[in-house]
Amino acid sequence: MRTIQNVIDLIIAEIPDAPLEDTVDVFKCGDPTQEVTGIVTTFTATMDVLRKTVKLGANLIITHEPTFYEHRERTEWLADDPVFQAKRAFLEEHKLTVWRFHDYWHRHQPDGIITGMLKALAWEKYRLPDTRAMLAIPGMTLANLVAALKEKLALPVVRVVGNPQQSSERIAMLVGSPGGDFQIMAFQQWNADVVICGETSEWQTCEYVRDAIALGHNKALVIIGHAKSEEEGMHYLSSWLQPKVPEVPITYLAIGDPITTL
Amino acid sequence: MRTIQNVIDLIIAEIPDAPLEDTVDVFKCGDPTQEVTGIVTTFTATMDVLRKTVKLGANLIITHEPTFYEHRERTEWLADDPVFQAKRAFLEEHKLTVWRFHDYWHRHQPDGIITGMLKALAWEKYRLPDTRAMLAIPGMTLANLVAALKEKLALPVVRVVGNPQQSSERIAMLVGSPGGDFQIMAFQQWNADVVICGETSEWQTCEYVRDAIALGHNKALVIIGHAKSEEEGMHYLSSWLQPKVPEVPITYLAIGDPITTL
Repeated sequence: MRTIQNVIDLIIAEIPDAPLEDTVDVFKCGDPTQEVTGIVTTFTATMDVLRKTVKLGANLIITHEPTFYEHRERTEWLADDPVFQAKRAFLEEHKLTVWRFHDYWHRHQPDGIITGMLKALAWEKYRLPDTRAMLAIPGMTLANLVAALKEKLALPVVRVVGNPQQSSERIAMLVGSPGGDFQIMAFQQWNADVVICGETSEWQTCEYVRDAIALGHNKALVIIGHAKSEEEGMHYLSSWLQPKVPEVPITYLAIGDPITTL
Repeated sequence: MRTIQNVIDLIIAEIPDAPLEDTVDVFKCGDPTQEVTGIVTTFTATMDVLRKTVKLGANLIITHEPTFYEHRERTEWLADDPVFQAKRAFLEEHKLTVWRFHDYWHRHQPDGIITGMLKALAWEKYRLPDTRAMLAIPGMTLANLVAALKEKLALPVVRVVGNPQQSSERIAMLVGSPGGDFQIMAFQQWNADVVICGETSEWQTCEYVRDAIALGHNKALVIIGHAKSEEEGMHYLSSWLQPKVPEVPITYLAIGDPITTL
């Protein structure tokens, strides 16, 4: 019998410097001594993901982002919230186990999320040696970069700061939401023409890029949404994990961008 | 002779509980003992705003957001950054004074930023008594709310989580970027149908709303961009301030959303 805990132990064994003393990558609910009946990998364990997991007969959800809307999943502030209460009750009723795979997956060599994204984009060959997230694509313009992202990630629209005709050869692939300071520093420390991000801090990064362009610098920001910037990394996880637990069914569930444009 | 310091003193005199011990509302550059030659109010002192200020012959810029891309305007991390260096040099060369009006303007009774936004929307009459930012608009739907925002704030697109036909009568007007926890709590504490925000934290607020809808709750999020969610508050400032310094020319400079959609 393979337990849920055994699956997680096999994952953590692949991560350099693991285990971490302080990490959000812990069980959020459920009993890891249960036999694993099936695994779902996903970017966020939304209500829709929970319902599909039950239909699949799986009992382990491996998620990148929090289940209860807060990085450390403190839930006291949500105690009286009916959305939190119903989600928690659903998890308990169906004996689902949720484990977060955030810090460790980013610490994998190479970073599991970025690798999954580059595989989805067929851009692994452009990664600069000895960098985590810098790409060089000769001849790339901002317009062509956006067109490639839209096509390969099925994005209906992409938000940008910059002019479509700008040269965008040196690309910092800063998935997720690493903070405005970090995004700004990438422009200089890595000499990036363009930063691709999930979320940004508009009053920081966007205003920096607006000023940079006004001063004649070739800088641009491309914002593709947090979920779309990282979820292919959880898709890649399903194929990375399968050979380690060949008898366990693993299903990747895409959640997509929660935001639509009107 | 009226000094720049005198203008700021007149403003702060109108704020309850002022002066604050810990505030970002200080001079960021320039000499406040100078005679004021003209005032510009704006959401962010972008390079474009600085150039226009020089053309206007003004020497005091009152801005809501930081000039140097960081809330406390620590600049050590930018010391070698050519964008920072050029902006700083321009400010010094033209002897411009920048004062931030963020904490105090939000503490004005009523909040100066929200009041300016409600005036621009002609929605002051919908503000619920004894609330800072709750509106009730009978019969409002999400589609109609978005249409009104697009028309009155000249927004080409609006990002939403929710279904256009949802009832959106109880509206929390959470301008700016107050944090995902705060946005989520507004749904329950204020029983809001919809939160209008500038920026959000997608993995928090957007996933909360996605789950709420999946569980049958009538909740929606409307994201209009940080600058567009607050800059009418700095427009309103120009008319609020003019009677206090009738001889000084005051110009409001709109900066608009730095982000475009491709």
